[in-house]
Amino acid sequence: MHNTIEKATGKLGILTPGLGAVATTLIAGVEAVKKNLAQPVGSLTQMGNIRLGKKSENRNPKIKDFVPLADLHDIVFGGWDVYSDNVFEAALNAKVLEPMLLHAVRAELEAIKPMKAVFDQAYIANLHGDNVKQAATKADLAKAVMDDIENFKEANDCSRVVLVWCGSTEIYLEPSAVHQTLASFEEGLRNNDPAIAPSMIYAYAALKLGVPFMNGAPNLTCDIPALIELAKQTDTPIGGKDFKTGQTLMKTILAPGLQARALGVKGWFSSNILGNRDGYVLDHPDNFKTKEVSKLSVLEDILQPETNPELYGEIYHKVRINYYPPAGDNKESWDNIDIFGWLGYSMQIKINFLCRDSILAAPLVLDLALFSDLAKRAGMSGIQEWLSFYFKSPQTESGLHPEHDIFKQLIGLQNTLRQLMGEEIITHQGQDFDQDLVEASL
Amino acid sequence: MHNTIEKATGKLGILTPGLGAVATTLIAGVEAVKKNLAQPVGSLTQMGNIRLGKKSENRNPKIKDFVPLADLHDIVFGGWDVYSDNVFEAALNAKVLEPMLLHAVRAELEAIKPMKAVFDQAYIANLHGDNVKQAATKADLAKAVMDDIENFKEANDCSRVVLVWCGSTEIYLEPSAVHQTLASFEEGLRNNDPAIAPSMIYAYAALKLGVPFMNGAPNLTCDIPALIELAKQTDTPIGGKDFKTGQTLMKTILAPGLQARALGVKGWFSSNILGNRDGYVLDHPDNFKTKEVSKLSVLEDILQPETNPELYGEIYHKVRINYYPPAGDNKESWDNIDIFGWLGYSMQIKINFLCRDSILAAPLVLDLALFSDLAKRAGMSGIQEWLSFYFKSPQTESGLHPEHDIFKQLIGLQNTLRQLMGEEIITHQGQDFDQDLVEASL
Amino acid sequence: MHNTIEKATGKLGILTPGLGAVATTLIAGVEAVKKNLAQPVGSLTQMGNIRLGKKSENRNPKIKDFVPLADLHDIVFGGWDVYSDNVFEAALNAKVLEPMLLHAVRAELEAIKPMKAVFDQAYIANLHGDNVKQAATKADLAKAVMDDIENFKEANDCSRVVLVWCGSTEIYLEPSAVHQTLASFEEGLRNNDPAIAPSMIYAYAALKLGVPFMNGAPNLTCDIPALIELAKQTDTPIGGKDFKTGQTLMKTILAPGLQARALGVKGWFSSNILGNRDGYVLDHPDNFKTKEVSKLSVLEDILQPETNPELYGEIYHKVRINYYPPAGDNKESWDNIDIFGWLGYSMQIKINFLCRDSILAAPLVLDLALFSDLAKRAGMSGIQEWLSFYFKSPQTESGLHPEHDIFKQLIGLQNTLRQLMGEEIITHQGQDFDQDLVEASL
Amino acid sequence: MHNTIEKATGKLGILTPGLGAVATTLIAGVEAVKKNLAQPVGSLTQMGNIRLGKKSENRNPKIKDFVPLADLHDIVFGGWDVYSDNVFEAALNAKVLEPMLLHAVRAELEAIKPMKAVFDQAYIANLHGDNVKQAATKADLAKAVMDDIENFKEANDCSRVVLVWCGSTEIYLEPSAVHQTLASFEEGLRNNDPAIAPSMIYAYAALKLGVPFMNGAPNLTCDIPALIELAKQTDTPIGGKDFKTGQTLMKTILAPGLQARALGVKGWFSSNILGNRDGYVLDHPDNFKTKEVSKLSVLEDILQPETNPELYGEIYHKVRINYYPPAGDNKESWDNIDIFGWLGYSMQIKINFLCRDSILAAPLVLDLALFSDLAKRAGMSGIQEWLSFYFKSPQTESGLHPEHDIFKQLIGLQNTLRQLMGEEIITHQGQDFDQDLVEASL
Ligand SMILES: NC(=O)c1ccc[n+]([C@@H]2O[C@H](COP(=O)([O-])OP(=O)(O)OC[C@H]3O[C@@H](n4cnc5c(N)ncnc54)[C@H](O)[C@@H]3O)[C@@H](O)[C@H]2O)c1
Ligand SMILES: NC(=O)c1ccc[n+]([C@@H]2O[C@H](COP(=O)([O-])OP(=O)(O)OC[C@H]3O[C@@H](n4cnc5c(N)ncnc54)[C@H](O)[C@@H]3O)[C@@H](O)[C@H]2O)c1
Ligand SMILES: NC(=O)c1ccc[n+]([C@@H]2O[C@H](COP(=O)([O-])OP(=O)(O)OC[C@H]3O[C@@H](n4cnc5c(N)ncnc54)[C@H](O)[C@@H]3O)[C@@H](O)[C@H]2O)c1
Ligand SMILES: NC(=O)c1ccc[n+]([C@@H]2O[C@H](COP(=O)([O-])OP(=O)(O)OC[C@H]3O[C@@H](n4cnc5c(N)ncnc54)[C@H](O)[C@@H]3O)[C@@H](O)[C@H]2O)c1
Ligand code: NA
Ligand code: NA
Repeated sequence: MHNTIEKATGKLGILTPGLGAVATTLIAGVEAVKKNLAQPVGSLTQMGNIRLGKKSENRNPKIKDFVPLADLHDIVFGGWDVYSDNVFEAALNAKVLEPMLLHAVRAELEAIKPMKAVFDQAYIANLHGDNVKQAATKADLAKAVMDDIENFKEANDCSRVVLVWCGSTEIYLEPSAVHQTLASFEEGLRNNDPAIAPSMIYAYAALKLGVPFMNGAPNLTCDIPALIELAKQTDTPIGGKDFKTGQTLMKTILAPGLQARALGVKGWFSSNILGNRDGYVLDHPDNFKTKEVSKLSVLEDILQPETNPELYGEIYHKVRINYYPPAGDNKESWDNIDIFGWLGYSMQIKINFLCRDSILAAPLVLDLALFSDLAKRAGMSGIQEWLSFYFKSPQTESGLHPEHDIFKQLIGLQNTLRQLMGEEIITHQGQDFDQDLVEASL
Repeated sequence: MHNTIEKATGKLGILTPGLGAVATTLIAGVEAVKKNLAQPVGSLTQMGNIRLGKKSENRNPKIKDFVPLADLHDIVFGGWDVYSDNVFEAALNAKVLEPMLLHAVRAELEAIKPMKAVFDQAYIANLHGDNVKQAATKADLAKAVMDDIENFKEANDCSRVVLVWCGSTEIYLEPSAVHQTLASFEEGLRNNDPAIAPSMIYAYAALKLGVPFMNGAPNLTCDIPALIELAKQTDTPIGGKDFKTGQTLMKTILAPGLQARALGVKGWFSSNILGNRDGYVLDHPDNFKTKEVSKLSVLEDILQPETNPELYGEIYHKVRINYYPPAGDNKESWDNIDIFGWLGYSMQIKINFLCRDSILAAPLVLDLALFSDLAKRAGMSGIQEWLSFYFKSPQTESGLHPEHDIFKQLIGLQNTLRQLMGEEIITHQGQDFDQDLVEASL
Repeated sequence: MHNTIEKATGKLGILTPGLGAVATTLIAGVEAVKKNLAQPVGSLTQMGNIRLGKKSENRNPKIKDFVPLADLHDIVFGGWDVYSDNVFEAALNAKVLEPMLLHAVRAELEAIKPMKAVFDQAYIANLHGDNVKQAATKADLAKAVMDDIENFKEANDCSRVVLVWCGSTEIYLEPSAVHQTLASFEEGLRNNDPAIAPSMIYAYAALKLGVPFMNGAPNLTCDIPALIELAKQTDTPIGGKDFKTGQTLMKTILAPGLQARALGVKGWFSSNILGNRDGYVLDHPDNFKTKEVSKLSVLEDILQPETNPELYGEIYHKVRINYYPPAGDNKESWDNIDIFGWLGYSMQIKINFLCRDSILAAPLVLDLALFSDLAKRAGMSGIQEWLSFYFKSPQTESGLHPEHDIFKQLIGLQNTLRQLMGEEIITHQGQDFDQDLVEASL
Repeated sequence: MHNTIEKATGKLGILTPGLGAVATTLIAGVEAVKKNLAQPVGSLTQMGNIRLGKKSENRNPKIKDFVPLADLHDIVFGGWDVYSDNVFEAALNAKVLEPMLLHAVRAELEAIKPMKAVFDQAYIANLHGDNVKQAATKADLAKAVMDDIENFKEANDCSRVVLVWCGSTEIYLEPSAVHQTLASFEEGLRNNDPAIAPSMIYAYAALKLGVPFMNGAPNLTCDIPALIELAKQTDTPIGGKDFKTGQTLMKTILAPGLQARALGVKGWFSSNILGNRDGYVLDHPDNFKTKEVSKLSVLEDILQPETNPELYGEIYHKVRINYYPPAGDNKESWDNIDIFGWLGYSMQIKINFLCRDSILAAPLVLDLALFSDLAKRAGMSGIQEWLSFYFKSPQTESGLHPEHDIFKQLIGLQNTLRQLMGEEIITHQGQDFDQDLVEASL
């Protein structure tokens, strides 16, 4: 079966709409890794192992040695931004990585200059850049992006390209009529329908060309029927929404643990302070709304109040994001979790996560780029639910609840890889040992 | 297959060596639950559900409705302690539950008076009670315990009995010659060999009678070849060691999450403050040693430094337990975790768990009693690895690494139950969705 | 001089507009203290000592034994509220004190029924009670309150009365024309001027009768020229605003400490979660605004950025209050303080205060009532700056910066008492010891 | 009076026994400040202001502009260490300051090479250096140190010298017979009495020459009658013990605040993690004992349980220091404080201080050096209690309790400076305002 996967030969172009903190941290990081200056920690594709066969077989290859992924040396980066700073300048501004490190890959970063963005302040009030495309209609803008992609591919001699949205969070939009079919969407492009946000234009352009598109922000973007339709039409993988980092990552680790133990939850209060540009954009209530919706669904889907009303029927869940410049990119989260145990006695868990937002996000972009390229070569099209592992608010086939439990997401991802490569699926069934015991005893 | 499981008819006696904070919280709680005054939160057998079949089938029965467990109304409690307080008095002293609640079940608790203990201060320096058996040899003491069990069973009209060790933590002992075979152990009993701790005498007595024995403390107790041999001989389930609550519970939830994301760990500092009798016993270095060993192994087994030396090769792991009387039974833990991500950048996670020790432990005793009774009726003998979920330091067939990841432990437990009842094993394979996608795409 | 202070003979009526969490905790507490069931911890008048003379004299009387204060047994409580629950019911609802304690003073609490309130939802949107006075004009309402006070005094045989505002926080109001003179204010009362909030009507009524008025909420209330004028006219003490408890208390303790060491501050983020009625009222942005203004001024006044711009010139200070019902009255605050030291190196202080809001506030009400009664008897009228110790946002003679440093506030309070009683002022001058050393060496 | 203070003309030599983390951070920092690369934050002498006269006078000069202190440009550094690394190498090893900063002052640092130490492993087991003096008797060693000081003074053309002990913490010693008089001490020097620790030999040498000696570690050192006698004989200032930084600093800020509010304290648990050489030395129980004694006394002296037994009579106070290498010099402390308020209801304060040990300590060394030099010039000899502000365990004239409240310590320090310069002492008496109010009202 795996011999049907196309080889990862030639260069892979990774293009990001948005060359801000996350994207520049990714790019500088990959260049540093290529020079052996640092390790790609946090990237499953680069550092993670996968167990194959029985525990006793002791087969644990690195994932990158198991599935045919693009090699880091074959990657070429590019992108769009509303600011015209090159990647070196943008990375310095972002203040994520130490200047010393950036200087070590300065030439590579300076060479990457953002293409003009599809942008409209109506969707992000707190940004003011002028590296922006001008055109009469959204359809023209989409065309311009397609040209950008084709030109980049040619200029950089790429055999394949993928797009990962690393742009700011747009204002909250509900799916509406124009999003329902590809036809209505394309009409909307021509009519400049306000329900079509810039991010959707990039997604449309990519999918039209059969280029995989992954969405790291909580915007709808490709999570609308019209673009799912297009993805299927052009055999293209899509995925989203919102990189799962920081506080939400912790939530999807911890909540399954509480549930495992049948411990009740009566409140979960989450506060965040962050001081980077992302925080500044989210300081606007319309943009925060988009993020809030993405962050809130997580608990319910994991704890299943309907199955367990006595334990999870009355959770008060609140999420706050506070713009606090002294924190810079060092986002800090504070969770207070009110749980209860035996006879209803209450307890509290308090978690203070001193994280670095872009440090956590960058390797996810890399993995998503490499895995979506793999999916394309393996002929998997449409929504890639096996990549739910990476998202706060995983896109699913309509009607299905997303899986938020990070441990189940990981098993799903690994079993997908095993199946792709013709390896046996692992069940954790009876942990080998019980298996024997159970058999022995019956 | 499940028709081979004996029915849970008649009364089940739950006997605990040690009627301290945990055991009295269990007993008072079950009595309160029987009177509908409170809920048995934290008990998987009582509150937990199990998913059967495909996700779309929507079959999620409560575990107690799925497997044939003893009903709470059929349980009779008893136990041994070195102090002669009845369970009402002991529960009041323990200061775990509110006096009001204890008064509501006062009659039931007062009726339970501890049998005389097998005890020797050489193994627990900080205890001074006089409700203690006197006999010439350890063999005689074992005999006396067997008589206690038989008498209790008859007096209370029980069809089955189980023992769960809820006594204090004994001093650190390494397995030695006398523990290697049943023969040498029985000789040791007759010779008063100092390597045979009181807890081992209870375990021996139980197993000799075919009574399941579970160990909630970190003592060796039944984790020695001699008693494993005896368990097999008498077809009896055994399990241990050390109830997994509080900080270690959090560790086995969090560590798999960090590993899932390929995040590195360079230090983990764990501090605890607690002020109950358990804390006082652990204030003695010899007894702390036993607990420390139990708490330290967890990380290594989950993070697998040998497979991933770049991420986990140099973890500095330290655990401290501090006796601090103002905390009473409200154990409080504080963890500082030094992690690193993309390019080695460091981050910190700080967790402050304001827990209640006995509130977390009591439901585990209940589950272990009910599941070990089930195992006995299902003919499963020896070490019950599928109950690893409940232990800090799970007993395994010699030579095997224990599984510490709580999520894998839970899948193991659930699949064992499914298999016992003739249900299909669940694989989380491709999460249903991927399955289809993958198939569709190949 | 102190022989000019009138004796505290006869009964003292303490009337509170607002019989919510704080007021009922005060009342129940004083009754419990009178029955020797508990101690008035947190009350300087009852538990605090004051050092007199030189350190070596060893004179440290309790404050209540030093200055002539009303005795707890001579206090009678009363009040107004928009809800008609008696104090027993209101205290149960507030869920601050344990039911058992409330039952022990049930008769005393049930006897206190709230008088009809002066209330208008325009000032507090989140309250819906109907125990409300109806009248044509605000002047009539003021008259009705005066009648209430006179009637209460007579019915309870009081020789003196004081009022302490324990009502909810009203919406944010800026001082405007109608507040400038007593004449314009009285005209406003007749005209139903919307700039006159209910709390001002109570304050006006009290001052008109020469009854001291203290304001525990951040509302303007008596902090307007018109009422300061009236206070002087009728020789009446006034004070406010906003009881200093919880997070702000910590701030006025910690900030002077940082400044003492010349440590810089670049950010201070304060978050609060609370779930009581106070929290629900503050969940409305108009009411939060009033609280926020009160909480924000503190740091600047202590750290004096203008004197020390290098250390305090660029502090980013943010305060959040989050309504979170699971917390109930157990307000919890979390502060993150970004400081810097030698060569600008940064450090962080994180404070998590698990406080009980009304437990901290109740003794302040008692002290303010007793001290304002003392002030009245000592002939001290107008703003009582020596009581700044109790307020988040101390009222001062116009033009003066308030003193926020709690240590200087305390020295001020104590020296005022010493001076009233003809004792020597204490200077901490040279700490006795240096004094000698310095003299010796010159 | 201040015209009797000698001018600070000529160069001041600051010599530190111990050129480890603290001392090298001081030296590198002063050099960086001299080059305008950074600011001496945390140093009261350099950054602090002092209020003179009435508040309304608005006189707030910097301390360094008010009293005649040595200028930073007139300082020359030197010292002793058991390791022979020069200050540049030692500073790099200490990992406190960024390499980039150290390189900017590399030449200055490399020029400072440690003189051979007076050292004996019997007093510090965890150190193994060989830059150590050899001599037959401790008297000879003292002589050698005196020679070092004289030579340094001459070689560097200094008009004055001071010593500040920045060496490691020695093992715990109780004052014994040999420490009682100068005569017995000098005999002990000749006899190699084991009760004379290396730090005492440095102190003796300095005092003999009339050179001020300040002790930053918790060792006894100059806190013995023999050396106090010598200090008076030679008109020399002395002071100690143990720089007040980090957790203890916080304690002396917070405890006075709780006491101000008459809040009770029932427990205070303090844990620390640190991973530098200081932490490694303190990992040895004998050395930890010295530190522990120094840290524990603080609370009692501030809260005065004897005056207020209901509030402070039963505090359980515990301090732990844990060696944890991942923390490096970034010491982290965690305090849990169990307090109680109105009616005895309990609350908790949790403080997590992410501090940098040497960053907090370095400016204290500078201040102590400059102030002790000032004291010498002003003719103040013996114990300088006005410098209590800087010490965890301030040395006092025998029989007196030390003052630990940092706010009273600061007032003492400032009033000493005011008095030295002929300025009015400030009383915070009635905060100006009350004064008027009170006067007005009597
Ligand atoms: N941990 C994380 O960092 C994290 C986690 C989850 C999601 N995200 C999301 O990832 C995105 C990127 O985060 P970041 O920290 O890099 O933010 P950032 O603000 O540093 O960078 C975003 C960049 O996108 C650009 N941009 C905005 N609209 C654009 C458009 N229409 N076309 C081209 N460029 C556009 C902006 O100018 C900016 O430079 C955000 O949406 C954020 O919410 C980040
Ligand atoms: N969360 C938890 O509470 C938790 C978690 C893991 C393990 N444990 C372990 O569970 C055990 C019980 O904890 P606890 O909090 O109830 O402690 P506890 O001190 O309150 O109770 C233990 C009781 O055992 C009795 N005992 C000691 N030796 C005995 C003997 N030889 N025979 C009979 N009785 C004996 C003691 O007198 C005491 O009453 C301890 O070993 C503890 O380490 C508890
Ligand atoms: N630590 C503290 O609890 C604290 C600290 C500072 C300030 N405060 C302030 O003290 C006040 C009381 O706090 P609380 O916790 O008791 O609140 P609460 O909501 O429990 O009680 C306030 C009561 O005032 C009543 N009220 C409102 N407007 C009124 C009116 N016009 N006339 C009569 N009654 C009226 C309400 O019905 C309510 O019962 C609030 O303003 C609060 O902001 C409290
Ligand atoms: N915040 C703080 O850093 C702080 C606070 C209070 C007290 N202190 C104390 O200050 C002292 C210095 O702290 P540090 O962090 O620089 O420690 P450090 O271990 O980095 O440096 C101490 C140096 O002293 C040297 N030394 C030890 N004995 C000596 C001797 N007899 N003669 C000469 N040199 C000797 C050691 O070799 C070492 O280089 C310690 O005693 C520490 O306990 C530090
Ligand atoms: Na500790
Ligand atoms: Na918040």
